[in-house]
Amino acid sequence: MQNENIFICENIGVADNGNLSFAGQDTVMLAKKYGTPLYLMDEDRIRKICRTYIGAVKKAFGDNGKVMYASKASSFKRIYEIMLEEGMNIDVVSCGEIYTAYSAGYPLSNAYFHSNNKTDEDIAFAMDKGVGYFVVDNEEELYAIDTEARKRGIKQSILLRITPGIDPHTFEAVATGKVDSKFGSAIETGQAEQMVEIALSLEGIELSGFHCHVGSQVFDSDVFLRSADVMLDFILDIKNKFGYVAKQLDLGGGFGVRYLASDPVYSLEDVISEIGDFVNKKVAELGIELPIIGFEPGRSIVADAGMTLYSVGTVKKIPEFINYVSVDGGMTDNIRYALYGAAYTLTLANKATENHNMLCSVVGRCCESGDIIQENVYMPDSVTRGDYLACMTTGAYHYSMASNYNRIGRPPIVMLREGTSYLAVRRETVENLISLDI
Amino acid sequence: MQNENIFICENIGVADNGNLSFAGQDTVMLAKKYGTPLYLMDEDRIRKICRTYIGAVKKAFGDNGKVMYASKASSFKRIYEIMLEEGMNIDVVSCGEIYTAYSAGYPLSNAYFHSNNKTDEDIAFAMDKGVGYFVVDNEEELYAIDTEARKRGIKQSILLRITPGIDPHTFEAVATGKVDSKFGSAIETGQAEQMVEIALSLEGIELSGFHCHVGSQVFDSDVFLRSADVMLDFILDIKNKFGYVAKQLDLGGGFGVRYLASDPVYSLEDVISEIGDFVNKKVAELGIELPIIGFEPGRSIVADAGMTLYSVGTVKKIPEFINYVSVDGGMTDNIRYALYGAAYTLTLANKATENHNMLCSVVGRCCESGDIIQENVYMPDSVTRGDYLACMTTGAYHYSMASNYNRIGRPPIVMLREGTSYLAVRRETVENLISLDI
Repeated sequence: MQNENIFICENIGVADNGNLSFAGQDTVMLAKKYGTPLYLMDEDRIRKICRTYIGAVKKAFGDNGKVMYASKASSFKRIYEIMLEEGMNIDVVSCGEIYTAYSAGYPLSNAYFHSNNKTDEDIAFAMDKGVGYFVVDNEEELYAIDTEARKRGIKQSILLRITPGIDPHTFEAVATGKVDSKFGSAIETGQAEQMVEIALSLEGIELSGFHCHVGSQVFDSDVFLRSADVMLDFILDIKNKFGYVAKQLDLGGGFGVRYLASDPVYSLEDVISEIGDFVNKKVAELGIELPIIGFEPGRSIVADAGMTLYSVGTVKKIPEFINYVSVDGGMTDNIRYALYGAAYTLTLANKATENHNMLCSVVGRCCESGDIIQENVYMPDSVTRGDYLACMTTGAYHYSMASNYNRIGRPPIVMLREGTSYLAVRRETVENLISLDI
Repeated sequence: MQNENIFICENIGVADNGNLSFAGQDTVMLAKKYGTPLYLMDEDRIRKICRTYIGAVKKAFGDNGKVMYASKASSFKRIYEIMLEEGMNIDVVSCGEIYTAYSAGYPLSNAYFHSNNKTDEDIAFAMDKGVGYFVVDNEEELYAIDTEARKRGIKQSILLRITPGIDPHTFEAVATGKVDSKFGSAIETGQAEQMVEIALSLEGIELSGFHCHVGSQVFDSDVFLRSADVMLDFILDIKNKFGYVAKQLDLGGGFGVRYLASDPVYSLEDVISEIGDFVNKKVAELGIELPIIGFEPGRSIVADAGMTLYSVGTVKKIPEFINYVSVDGGMTDNIRYALYGAAYTLTLANKATENHNMLCSVVGRCCESGDIIQENVYMPDSVTRGDYLACMTTGAYHYSMASNYNRIGRPPIVMLREGTSYLAVRRETVENLISLDI
């Protein structure tokens, strides 16, 4: 009876005709209109979460709160237009993201450029486009940015990426705040302090403050409080050593989202309020001014605004072994199970109210055994070719991680807004697939 | 001293100037000419291996040997032109691969259309393009192909994909011949026989024979002999039950390639010769005619014909922890370490003869901790921004699995032929990245 657990977000429901609804719209109608596989994005939900973040940081930090959408979670032109309209800052991690935001008319002065490895070309490109802040990961980058900035006769604003040495107890591939990380410079080893000293000495660099990011899928304030604690001590330490007062402290993202009904429910407002209380108290204790406090949520802005619809192609029942339900997508549009064993909630969109009583693996169409969307889930016993299968919470790291493996085109993104739908990214055709071939 | 172990394929060497050479060409010159990251493909090597296969099956099976390139390993227009010139058949797994081959002028009558989930649209598209054989995975597909064929007044040639119930003892994600597989119909459960009965009853279907594929990275004849043993018994069984004599038996691919110097060296000719001896003896014993025996190598045709060149961006030494060398590519162009923990041989192309004495992790440029190319490898202690790093054996499942994660464009493919180089796939630009955005 898995279908009792499908209501993991307020935008999921069942229509009067028994079809699964998303953002108040009939998913079966959407699948028929736009074809499958299909990424749906609930624009109303995205806007609501942006407003929740902006309201919460305003309450916690007044005008010193800042929210940047970490756009690697889902980067396409339309999302930057929405972020602009909602007054969000953005994180970008590549020339591709910068160019996409630029093409959407997003003012790059509100962008923070991340990445552990910016090439000289990236740096020049980002300056051409007027990126507001570089989040500098390492020494090579610092010098390269300084060189390019001096060449242009400008001072480039930067944050330094610092690793506070905190283990968030999330799983390995998304744990980035520990000392042993490819990202940033550690306080513990003295390398963070060295980076500050260098940054302050460079003519082309304007040090605006510090950045840290500890983990992913965080459901409470704990790791943020521990990060803030370490980082504010670091700010004081740097002030005492160099007389430099950080104007910004970016505490990163990592706010969790629910993939399963069993995942925790928490209040973003409460978590940010707790962080606010802690930070305000701590800065008072340390006798330093409250810096601009930044958060960079990505996943939590878009994940549960997303749903993927597939068509069922094959139902294979292997007696005494297992049942397989194959769909017309898979690891090409959702590689997270193959990569991380990520959990998802699934249902049949056109049979949402039927008893989900058949244990099965839902697999993709790629010629690869690891092309699995989810193992050991329940589907109605009546599942058959032509049914529509919905995978929830696919708004983050699905379109952005999609590939053309097996030379399969990527699905379109259809936005759902106030009861209407429109295309934001076109379906990739076979003609598109050979466009770079000579 | 890892660099003693870089000569894992005959096309890898060191030039007089100390630079790494590939297919007899200076990799540093190639990196400078085409930029990084860069996929190189040794066309001479590809052609040589095709000829080795064709020669070996000819020797083993006379005119009854057939070799299909499993093009999901690397699918782009130029590769199909090469396959056509070398007299190779091909496997395709999607409309995208069919269209790419078609656009290259490859005659689709020599193509075998795989996949565990062909949609009605796929089936119609493949018939439009005249695909010679459908490799039918399941009952739904069988009926759908029959329906479409009858609509067109044709009989579509097919093979049935059979799971012989063999455990190849390779790792989970590439083990496909066991009963518990998303692919094919198992002999053990009686479902394979049912599929034959249905296929023989359908007016739009011309059953040409059977297909099986057991595993990947196979370095000897063992799994092929076990597969052939089971499949030939099955052919006799079907002959006795239905009077139907299979004309083709496709034994699949999976021939191993060397990623590390410690991987086994084996002779393709010897393995195929052993399979030939076994099959010829067995058909004589069973009193059946030798069917056309097919092999569908993918990885072993292109893997060691490939090399990826990167530029080093950052070298991060974290005292008492670890050293990180960051390059300008990563999981976007090579996701195999993130997916499977796949092993690779690496070296610095411009310092190939230097002592490789610094233990490090080579990581990519994506904002993701799991973006690792290889952990615990040795690089020269002098490694620095601007050096060129080479990753060997990247011709299979690299370009084909590449993504735009972090909105990073995919590298170009440059072919190396008889001492010259030319572009086969262009570098993906930021403008390309937004081409589907509305």
